[in-house]
Amino acid sequence: VEKVRRWPGMVTQKIWKVGRDDPRRVIHALKVGFSLTLVSLLYLLEPLFDGIGDNAIWAVMTVVVVLEFTAGATLCKGLNRGLGTLCAGSLVFLLEFVADKSGRTSRAIFIGVAVFLTGSAATYMRFFPHIKKNYDYGIVIFLLTFNLIAVSSFRVHNVLKVAHERFYTIAIGCGVCLLMSLLVFPNWSGLELHNSTVSKLEGLAESIEACVNKYFKDSEIIEDEKSSDDEDPIYRGYKSVLDSKTMDETLALHASWEPRHSLYCYKTPWKQYVRLGAVLRHFGYTLVALHGCLQSEIQAPRSVRDLFKAPCTRVAREISKTFKELADSIRNKRLVAPILVSDPLHEALQDLNNAIKSQPRLFLSSKNHHHNHHASQMLALTAATANAHQKPPNTNSSPVSLATVKTDNSALLEWKRKRAADQYKDSERKVLRPTLSKLDITSLEFSEALPFAAFASLLVEMAARLDMVTEQVEELGRLSRFKEYKADEVEI
Amino acid sequence: VEKVRRWPGMVTQKIWKVGRDDPRRVIHALKVGFSLTLVSLLYLLEPLFDGIGDNAIWAVMTVVVVLEFTAGATLCKGLNRGLGTLCAGSLVFLLEFVADKSGRTSRAIFIGVAVFLTGSAATYMRFFPHIKKNYDYGIVIFLLTFNLIAVSSFRVHNVLKVAHERFYTIAIGCGVCLLMSLLVFPNWSGLELHNSTVSKLEGLAESIEACVNKYFKDSEIIEDEKSSDDEDPIYRGYKSVLDSKTMDETLALHASWEPRHSLYCYKTPWKQYVRLGAVLRHFGYTLVALHGCLQSEIQAPRSVRDLFKAPCTRVAREISKTFKELADSIRNKRLVAPILVSDPLHEALQDLNNAIKSQPRLFLSSKNHHHNHHASQMLALTAATANAHQKPPNTNSSPVSLATVKTDNSALLEWKRKRAADQYKDSERKVLRPTLSKLDITSLEFSEALPFAAFASLLVEMAARLDMVTEQVEELGRLSRFKEYKADEVEI
Repeated sequence: VEKVRRWPGMVTQKIWKVGRDDPRRVIHALKVGFSLTLVSLLYLLEPLFDGIGDNAIWAVMTVVVVLEFTAGATLCKGLNRGLGTLCAGSLVFLLEFVADKSGRTSRAIFIGVAVFLTGSAATYMRFFPHIKKNYDYGIVIFLLTFNLIAVSSFRVHNVLKVAHERFYTIAIGCGVCLLMSLLVFPNWSGLELHNSTVSKLEGLAESIEACVNKYFKDSEIIEDEKSSDDEDPIYRGYKSVLDSKTMDETLALHASWEPRHSLYCYKTPWKQYVRLGAVLRHFGYTLVALHGCLQSEIQAPRSVRDLFKAPCTRVAREISKTFKELADSIRNKRLVAPILVSDPLHEALQDLNNAIKSQPRLFLSSKNHHHNHHASQMLALTAATANAHQKPPNTNSSPVSLATVKTDNSALLEWKRKRAADQYKDSERKVLRPTLSKLDITSLEFSEALPFAAFASLLVEMAARLDMVTEQVEELGRLSRFKEYKADEVEI
Repeated sequence: VEKVRRWPGMVTQKIWKVGRDDPRRVIHALKVGFSLTLVSLLYLLEPLFDGIGDNAIWAVMTVVVVLEFTAGATLCKGLNRGLGTLCAGSLVFLLEFVADKSGRTSRAIFIGVAVFLTGSAATYMRFFPHIKKNYDYGIVIFLLTFNLIAVSSFRVHNVLKVAHERFYTIAIGCGVCLLMSLLVFPNWSGLELHNSTVSKLEGLAESIEACVNKYFKDSEIIEDEKSSDDEDPIYRGYKSVLDSKTMDETLALHASWEPRHSLYCYKTPWKQYVRLGAVLRHFGYTLVALHGCLQSEIQAPRSVRDLFKAPCTRVAREISKTFKELADSIRNKRLVAPILVSDPLHEALQDLNNAIKSQPRLFLSSKNHHHNHHASQMLALTAATANAHQKPPNTNSSPVSLATVKTDNSALLEWKRKRAADQYKDSERKVLRPTLSKLDITSLEFSEALPFAAFASLLVEMAARLDMVTEQVEELGRLSRFKEYKADEVEI
């Protein structure tokens, strides 16, 4: 009962939230309502109706189907619709010309065959990837119009007049759509793509810093934060990057139809945004692997990590700084600062390298420490504390079970089954995150430094990959003719 | 000229290829053609036309718009369309009832306001993620039908009759669509999802084996293969997994509308397929990172790799075998073999562990070898050969430039610019692959074992992640009530 009473409140809250998240949605909804009312006037106002008649419904239909959220999408659909209608009209006209002289029955057969052939051919064409991507909607409209006109031409003899009137009203509908989407509070796909690229870069920057900071933080603090923070900042940062492919491509496709940016004598290279998106996605995969190091069962002991805390954090900070610089450069449409980007990062890497070189003993397997008594006393001590500190690693979601698992295999299976049942209710997001394994990998005593080596190596890999990102952003700047970089503008 | 003459041949070849890749496409195209001809008969045949009249165009329209490639998609669209039309019809009827008594002008105003409000509200509703996912098409149809009927009700007074006739013809159209998609060579979204899951598992299996094999192969052989093999088998294996999110979700959504599998008293858990897809995607990210190790600049010397070739290959083989077993289990709809899956893998991991433990010296930084004369002679020799063998690592696409780059920074920038221009023509696929960096990371002398440690660590991480995949597949088997596993059926 309580639930039922709270339901209207929840719905209101949800409706409010959708609008607050992006106020353009409210504007768009009002725009659609207004456009529909506008074309309805064709029907409702006496003088207009007398001129156009029943065909006014085609204007209404066009507005409902064509008017989309962004200007690019509307243009793309509108042009597709216009083109499809035009092609279909011409084809029917051609058929009429051929079938004009024949008798009624042979005419019916002729039309039937034409409908079958055109339907099959057009549907088959929709399977070509290139056509599917650009003209799918146009082909649907072509098929629709062709069939409607071809079939009705059998009854109505003045096809040309019907086609002409219909085209007229569709043009009115398209006109209203273009007017509304281009001139009244327009939303640009291109701008959306631009902004999403900037926010992806910033998201990655935050994610990297958060990831490395968390790696070097005390595990107790992590446990505390876990409960208070339901959305992991690391995950939040890269999540939008990973599955961005479809959205990027759609936005770029629509953006390429938008006229706005060609006012400056050159076309904005939307394809370069897609390319940059692909590189960012690939960077994201490495970041996921790095994040995986945090969640893995095999963890380098705290003492090992603490040795490399400073250089690793520095590398991460430099990478993150570079990303922020890149984001800034795209946001302000200026070229990337040339020196700023790579030099401090290179120094940071050198630093990390020196740190690793200064601790050769750590890359020994933990089991073999005791055989190497000739090793310098200090380092042996470090390693010993490392052994002592080796806690049950990263007990993310089931701290109790993991400790007991290591005993035998049958208990393992039992626990497996139980956990599978528990986990079933988890959302996809949760499935993506923990990497607790039930293979008792923790019982394998790999070299203690091995997991840290993986972490460091991935960090270095990232620095390498960062270069590709920088390259693509520079290319973007070059192609979009961003303004020159001026040193005094920068404050990082 | 030559190009123009070859053009028709190329087009024919392309048309042929689209059909050969998936013959169901040809069948689908013929089905659409046939359905259209069928509904056209409503117009073309005298007795049918007399009964239905001009409204027959609505049947044609329905077929064009609703008939989709898979049965699930058609059902989903058809039901959405039916529901949308019904809702719109009822709403108009309600409005008629309210506005019935009023004068002509106030009626026009009333309709205009109703159109505006409904248009805005419906458009706003499309922004809710849940509605967007399931009922987007239904809302478009609702809006379309509502506007058409509401507006035309102003002129035609027998709205109920119009609505009734239209509903009738739409039902005929939907009926033809359902008939064609469910009974004549049906394509099931569910089956497609099932098959794509199996092929994703197999793709990952191949990819892992290929990846590890390539890592331990001689670099000369790799160079040779590069030229002959234009599509990398590693990349081919995981590429379909990475961007599978949208497709999986769409297929699962459509599959959930399909009636076929509910004949067996229980519903196939399509959501579990989506969840499995998410875990596989995450596994794919780790695989990308592993693949990144192959393409990275910092490479472990051949001699280091050779030491661990056998255990690593074994682990990869076991992971790959497990994937194949999982793929088999899903394909044959039987439960996963319980023992087969984890034990050999565990042994293989133990093996790798022992191998790493037996080579403690390797995890020393290369610069420090010479100071550790107390280390056993044999291992020092290994390390020395390792140093000698250190070739310019993995010169994937520009073997010459990399060697010359290490000198100074200005030359680096020059080369950078040149390479950026070269790379511009690369497709997205190519951008995804090479990780050649222009930061001269190779000049940083990290511990030689560091890159190998990353490789091994990622491999172990994969083994851990594999468990999550197994878990999800087991869950899938349980929910779908796959048949029991029988030991004698298996031949791996």
